[in-house]
Amino acid sequence: MTATRIDGKAIAAALREKIAVEGKKLIDETGVVPGIAVVIVGEDPASKVYVASKGKAANECHFKSVEHALPADTSEDTLLSLVGELNEDDSIHGILVQLPLPDHIDESKVLELIRPDKDVDGFHPINVGLLTAGAKDKAMVPCTPAGSLILAKRSLGDLSGKSAVVVGRSNIVGKPMAALLLAESCTVTIAHSRTKDLPSVVKAADIVVAAVGRPQMIKGDWIKDGACVIDVGINRIPAPERGEGKTRLVGDVDYDGAAEHAGFITPVPGGVGPMTIALLMANTLTSARRAAGLEDLDYAALLG
Amino acid sequence: MTATRIDGKAIAAALREKIAVEGKKLIDETGVVPGIAVVIVGEDPASKVYVASKGKAANECHFKSVEHALPADTSEDTLLSLVGELNEDDSIHGILVQLPLPDHIDESKVLELIRPDKDVDGFHPINVGLLTAGAKDKAMVPCTPAGSLILAKRSLGDLSGKSAVVVGRSNIVGKPMAALLLAESCTVTIAHSRTKDLPSVVKAADIVVAAVGRPQMIKGDWIKDGACVIDVGINRIPAPERGEGKTRLVGDVDYDGAAEHAGFITPVPGGVGPMTIALLMANTLTSARRAAGLEDLDYAALLG
Ligand SMILES: NC(=O)c1ccc[n+]([C@@H]2O[C@H](COP(=O)([O-])OP(=O)(O)OC[C@H]3O[C@@H](n4cnc5c(N)ncnc54)[C@H](OP(=O)(O)O)[C@@H]3O)[C@@H](O)[C@H]2O)c1
Ligand SMILES: NC(=O)c1ccc[n+]([C@@H]2O[C@H](COP(=O)([O-])OP(=O)(O)OC[C@H]3O[C@@H](n4cnc5c(N)ncnc54)[C@H](OP(=O)(O)O)[C@@H]3O)[C@@H](O)[C@H]2O)c1
Repeated sequence: MTATRIDGKAIAAALREKIAVEGKKLIDETGVVPGIAVVIVGEDPASKVYVASKGKAANECHFKSVEHALPADTSEDTLLSLVGELNEDDSIHGILVQLPLPDHIDESKVLELIRPDKDVDGFHPINVGLLTAGAKDKAMVPCTPAGSLILAKRSLGDLSGKSAVVVGRSNIVGKPMAALLLAESCTVTIAHSRTKDLPSVVKAADIVVAAVGRPQMIKGDWIKDGACVIDVGINRIPAPERGEGKTRLVGDVDYDGAAEHAGFITPVPGGVGPMTIALLMANTLTSARRAAGLEDLDYAALLG
Repeated sequence: MTATRIDGKAIAAALREKIAVEGKKLIDETGVVPGIAVVIVGEDPASKVYVASKGKAANECHFKSVEHALPADTSEDTLLSLVGELNEDDSIHGILVQLPLPDHIDESKVLELIRPDKDVDGFHPINVGLLTAGAKDKAMVPCTPAGSLILAKRSLGDLSGKSAVVVGRSNIVGKPMAALLLAESCTVTIAHSRTKDLPSVVKAADIVVAAVGRPQMIKGDWIKDGACVIDVGINRIPAPERGEGKTRLVGDVDYDGAAEHAGFITPVPGGVGPMTIALLMANTLTSARRAAGLEDLDYAALLG
């Protein structure tokens, strides 16, 4: 079997277009312009790339977008008061503090100050709790898992009764992904660094989500024939074949090997990554719509 | 193999004794008397039995205990203002609203009003989120899963790397149980009514937690040899052998069949049930200690 490659880049572009249309409708009908504020502290190059692409996506969606770039030595108090101001600012529906923060700042203190309804990253304990309890309609759902779920559903249709394994148990990806798959009525297994015989655990699954952060760790022969493989990992490895000192991005899955067994598989880059940013726009729109008293849109359905 | 019967009743009694000693110490050293308020609306006989046993346990632990028994036609507003008063009452460290509530009252509205630090049931979204995110030291952990975890750890020791299956995904038992086992570094599978081939899923597990609400559904030959079986289910079934119209309590596991395979197994009654009430006292003490600025106790360690 050779897997169907899931074109996350194209799906994300289509989703951003739909969001732009819906954003425009919201503005025309209610006057509410979805607004997102992205806060970055310090000069981490990867973070700067992410923040720039978030701003670009917001512009494409006709959202208001504000970037607060603070120096690396910004005090915790300064950051907390900025978040406090953004909480009060009615033109801002989404607040995103780019992680990681410098060591002298208590990350959880900052994330817990963000008003839950503006927490477009979905990391506030209240949003984590609402998602876990199955109240997706009240929660903000983290972007990467939400985007991964859309890709899995577009590939497999109804997920009910399917067995899913999530490799990785981070608060940002693994755990919310497991919560989403459970809400779709998958039988969900969460694996991690202490898991014994990971190959067999993976082999049993109809859906494999890899969120480990180890380049190409998940091998082709671990994958059940026909499974749907969602590779969240983004790892930079040396690519001498492209020239001296060159690098390239790979996922947590050995793509070529896995594609021989899987039914569907996301590439890296061009799989989950672009979906993350599209879902950030979706969350911002959701927050703006809720502020205007409107119901949530079903973005998977919107994609058609 | 014949399983070791886990004597939850005796372990719970020992734990209540330790809690009474610690409660006494807290009173002597800080003057803070742990206080719990239990609110019951209506006349559900099972709920009344639970509430009475909670009050009895609180007395045994030398806690202050207050019971608010409200008529079935109590309005939502009346209940909400009672919760509001208890939130403000410094002599109360734990507030428990007995479920289920009558249909005309919005359960989640009531539960979300309880101050998270007094939410000794651990059902508030913030506590759910903190537990999910692994911040047990800030959360209130639901009593039944917390008690079940103590029983599993006393049987197996370190749980890291063990495979666990939780059958049932309720917000009260299944999901928080899965979160606790994950925090112990088990590889955790959550199964439910849509799970395919449940017998094989159960058979793969070193730890089986049954929280289904179906009498004796989990059969002996589903259990892996040597596994630890924690039966949360409490089901009343006819027991004509005890006389006409008589009933008895059974769990979700076929005890006799499972005991032939398991290494450890909890009986019903006398397994998880008594632990639930002991952990409610533990949570009340934890809340009172936190209010006094003291660190959490490790109740599993306290038991020795
Ligand atoms: N596409 C996107 O937009 C996006 C967004 C976020 C993250 N990512 C990428 O996704 C990956 C995971 O990110 P994260 O934030 O979740 O990472 P993380 O916080 O480092 O978590 C990694 C998880 O993988 C587990 N793990 C590590 N080594 C393992 C092994 N040998 N076998 C099994 N499990 C192992 C860890 O287990 P323990 O808990 O036991 O240590 C941990 O739970 C990274 O490559 C990251 O760059 C991509
Ligand atoms: N010992 C104690 O102190 C204590 C405390 C609380 C509860 N309990 C007992 O524990 C049991 C569970 O309570 P609960 O509140 O969690 O119950 P619940 O809310 O009714 O949840 C039952 C769970 O079991 C699943 N389920 C139902 N039929 C199934 C089947 N045939 N195969 C696999 N899964 C099935 C359901 O799946 P779906 O989600 O797909 O419907 C659901 O997730 C009850 O017997 C209750 O009395 C005991």
